[in-house]
Amino acid sequence: MFTRIDHVGIAVRDLEASVEFYTTTFGLTVAGRETNDAQGVREAMLYVGAVPSGGFAAGAPGGASYVQLLEPLADDTPVGKFLATRGEGVHHVGYGVDDVAQALAELGEQGIRLVDERPRHGSLGASIAFLHPKSVGGVLTELVQAARG
Amino acid sequence: MFTRIDHVGIAVRDLEASVEFYTTTFGLTVAGRETNDAQGVREAMLYVGAVPSGGFAAGAPGGASYVQLLEPLADDTPVGKFLATRGEGVHHVGYGVDDVAQALAELGEQGIRLVDERPRHGSLGASIAFLHPKSVGGVLTELVQAARG
Repeated sequence: MFTRIDHVGIAVRDLEASVEFYTTTFGLTVAGRETNDAQGVREAMLYVGAVPSGGFAAGAPGGASYVQLLEPLADDTPVGKFLATRGEGVHHVGYGVDDVAQALAELGEQGIRLVDERPRHGSLGASIAFLHPKSVGGVLTELVQAARG
Repeated sequence: MFTRIDHVGIAVRDLEASVEFYTTTFGLTVAGRETNDAQGVREAMLYVGAVPSGGFAAGAPGGASYVQLLEPLADDTPVGKFLATRGEGVHHVGYGVDDVAQALAELGEQGIRLVDERPRHGSLGASIAFLHPKSVGGVLTELVQAARG
């Protein structure tokens, strides 16, 4: 079902400072920035490794892996609450799937607790859904069907 | 510096139950199991995605990504303490580097706090070193130079 590690989502207090740190210190490349009001975050996706030829203009390259830096829009958002209780750190892990709707259906049948009953809009045009950490050994787990390039 | 996401390290209470869960539910494939006395863990590396042709016999494929499941050997180990305070969940993130000794030297010069001053033995024959989470926005970060296949 999982085809790759799509991204590691990291909760940060200051998005621009964190982007500066990851690009300067570790050599990552910014693939895109966006604000997701539904999730209450400002975020940046940073490509890990060499930027694929063709770049990012056409949406998420299917095989890419990212660090996703997440700054909450307010304290009463999921990431805002995470920062208040846990501090900065890994918030979730996103895995690539070929078909997020089909994956959700299969996991629901297996009794996995779903945060999202149906796919919704994710980063870089992806279709995504979250699984509840109580069903996945404490790991907030995201399914990511990348946009077609 | 970072060439890929090598693995996500997840602290678990019951290694075999967690291996069963990830292989059955998400379709991951066990690449190897080992006990690392120096780190105080029993662990399994699970390949995310299709198993590369040639398999795992010759060590870690350079481009592979894994879920690493970590069960502590005792309560007073790093992962044992993590479980006691945080519960099961993401323990660290490992990124691929071409040369872990060189990466350590560069990061040390930049003032990044190192857990390991020199490389040590990691999973699947890799040479690894940890960076302190206080220098990396709360993320325990591992550098991984994969074994030559």
